[in-house]
Amino acid sequence: MITVDEARALLLDLVQTGEIEEVPLAQASTRVLASDVAATRDQPPFAASSMDGYAIKAAEVEQHAMFKLIGEAAAGHGFDGTVGAGQAVRIFTGAPIPQGADFVVIQEDVDRKGDLITISDDPGSKDNIRPAGVDFRVGDTISAPRPLRPEDVALMASMNIPRVPVRRKPVIALISTGDELVMPGEVPGPDQIIASNTFGLKALFERHGAHVRVLPIARDTVASLETTFGLAQGADLVVTIGGASVGDHDLVAQTTQQLGMERSFYKVRMRPGKPLMAGRLAGAAMVGLPGNPVSAMVCGYVFILPMLRKMLGQSEEADALVTATLSHDIAQNGPRQHYMRARVEGGKISVFDNQDSSLLSVLSKSNALAVRASDDPARSAGETLHYLPL
Amino acid sequence: MITVDEARALLLDLVQTGEIEEVPLAQASTRVLASDVAATRDQPPFAASSMDGYAIKAAEVEQHAMFKLIGEAAAGHGFDGTVGAGQAVRIFTGAPIPQGADFVVIQEDVDRKGDLITISDDPGSKDNIRPAGVDFRVGDTISAPRPLRPEDVALMASMNIPRVPVRRKPVIALISTGDELVMPGEVPGPDQIIASNTFGLKALFERHGAHVRVLPIARDTVASLETTFGLAQGADLVVTIGGASVGDHDLVAQTTQQLGMERSFYKVRMRPGKPLMAGRLAGAAMVGLPGNPVSAMVCGYVFILPMLRKMLGQSEEADALVTATLSHDIAQNGPRQHYMRARVEGGKISVFDNQDSSLLSVLSKSNALAVRASDDPARSAGETLHYLPL
Repeated sequence: MITVDEARALLLDLVQTGEIEEVPLAQASTRVLASDVAATRDQPPFAASSMDGYAIKAAEVEQHAMFKLIGEAAAGHGFDGTVGAGQAVRIFTGAPIPQGADFVVIQEDVDRKGDLITISDDPGSKDNIRPAGVDFRVGDTISAPRPLRPEDVALMASMNIPRVPVRRKPVIALISTGDELVMPGEVPGPDQIIASNTFGLKALFERHGAHVRVLPIARDTVASLETTFGLAQGADLVVTIGGASVGDHDLVAQTTQQLGMERSFYKVRMRPGKPLMAGRLAGAAMVGLPGNPVSAMVCGYVFILPMLRKMLGQSEEADALVTATLSHDIAQNGPRQHYMRARVEGGKISVFDNQDSSLLSVLSKSNALAVRASDDPARSAGETLHYLPL
Repeated sequence: MITVDEARALLLDLVQTGEIEEVPLAQASTRVLASDVAATRDQPPFAASSMDGYAIKAAEVEQHAMFKLIGEAAAGHGFDGTVGAGQAVRIFTGAPIPQGADFVVIQEDVDRKGDLITISDDPGSKDNIRPAGVDFRVGDTISAPRPLRPEDVALMASMNIPRVPVRRKPVIALISTGDELVMPGEVPGPDQIIASNTFGLKALFERHGAHVRVLPIARDTVASLETTFGLAQGADLVVTIGGASVGDHDLVAQTTQQLGMERSFYKVRMRPGKPLMAGRLAGAAMVGLPGNPVSAMVCGYVFILPMLRKMLGQSEEADALVTATLSHDIAQNGPRQHYMRARVEGGKISVFDNQDSSLLSVLSKSNALAVRASDDPARSAGETLHYLPL
């Protein structure tokens, strides 16, 4: 059996970073920027007032000095003339500084009588002018790759970038397998349960930028599996759930072999999730996840999200683990790397007692997977533990 | 001027938690659960095998013991008969434990010859059976309110909850105001700039569960503002951007007054964002954000997101600040509460030098807003600072 790191490296080899597509700026949030974008203008495009006040010559700034108003400059409507000696222009925040002026006295420091103003309070030395290009200049870039946040979208708008190059959303086809499964809302037979991983993994992958196609449940026959694999055509990644164990009824391995899959590996030294299988099938990457609900979700976080990030052109930093302080003692780990459901609060991590891989209720209470290396020794409260945030 | 906390309290008074609507499970992820949902079944619905192996009577488990195979139980297809003394049923993971059996010997511990099996290795004392209802029982609940995560969606699927009660998405109408603004992709005149807040705030509010309507840019006339406010009909919250300062050209206050707004407050003792205005207008909450790009985004985080969370029925915990260690000295704060653009990395926070409220480039580099109380004294590297994550 290979290690988790070995499996992840092999899985990353199965996928490629996708093509670039352009989307309107209003749809760019949460997408991953695919190539650097550059400002098409300076911001501000002109020296602008940062306050409401009066634009004058800095050399004339002095308490009790008097000026004659010769016009007005508002945001969107500059003053066309030139400010001469003893002259002032009424100016509002964001308006271009008129020619000849190089200081804005804020209105709170001025007494106005008709067309005459007097500087009534000490105006200080701050000129209240934003120089042209102080925010950014033509050609300044936002560098790729990066998941676009609201702040980036605002900046791109300001740079006048109406269309944004992003990575195409990878298409993941999800196939749940098993005669025991019915869809939510159906009435299960006495030996049946509800397909749950399909919905949990769909939500997980969509949240991280995938387009997810949920295919019909494949039954435990080669024919049903073949039909369903046929429906996966066009996907970048086909993910099966269940049927990847070693029992006589685990047909995914058999069927994919018949369909010509080049197998990359089978089984990983981890808990939960040991019977993981992967390869290339009909031009797509294929990953067979174990059918236990928690195993499937954990493998989604540990293996599929890094694949998704590579397809989206993101750096591997995003996969970095974080640390917290253990709030209680934990026993020695076994020979397999263990992803333990846990809860992190205020920098402290508590690992749940019952780690049975069938317990979705425990997963739903968790916000972290504590990562234990193979044969990790017993750990005491206060020690530092690595975890994967959920 | 009121404080940030006073303003936030008044703003929360302007909005109500919205109605409940039901959505299909596949669309529930990222929505906020509005009322408790209960499992409609036990999981597992029957005692089930957790391994591939052979179901026998626990009393007969002994190394070298021999059993006759009388049938098979697979996931979805139980064994109808009863396991008697000296008998075994081939069983697969997830299959119901047959009547009469109460132990599963894993297949690795068994030698099989035709219809006879022998326990070849010490099978240990673990019965490899998951009791019925070990994950959850009929009536076990997922408690509201909570933003639904992929793990919750998987659990709800397993509970056979095909439709999920969530809060209706609050509708926010966004109105940018100002003669200086053009939309991204347009060619601005010499005195014009690009509307950026509209796009940044749209992305921010959508990410936090709102449905955002971007209205046409309102020009600096009462008539244009009135027309645009007319288009906001049906929104829960109308947010204007710009025109909330005190200059002669700030018409939002004048127009909303003419339209009959009950003003809640005007101006908050904060940086950036002082000229914030709020009230009730035509049955909707109305908030006038300042027009400086950074001020508008900061007020979006500090004021609009808490309003949005209340409308979505979320607890106020979600608004809690977090802490980090200052990586450098910072000067004393002025009289207004200050939200400073900052970067948090590895638990250390660095505050950017230039905090001019026009600099979106600095906001785009930030991942936190360091919060300084009014007249907060100078702080040294190593001290703890509160921040709002971006």
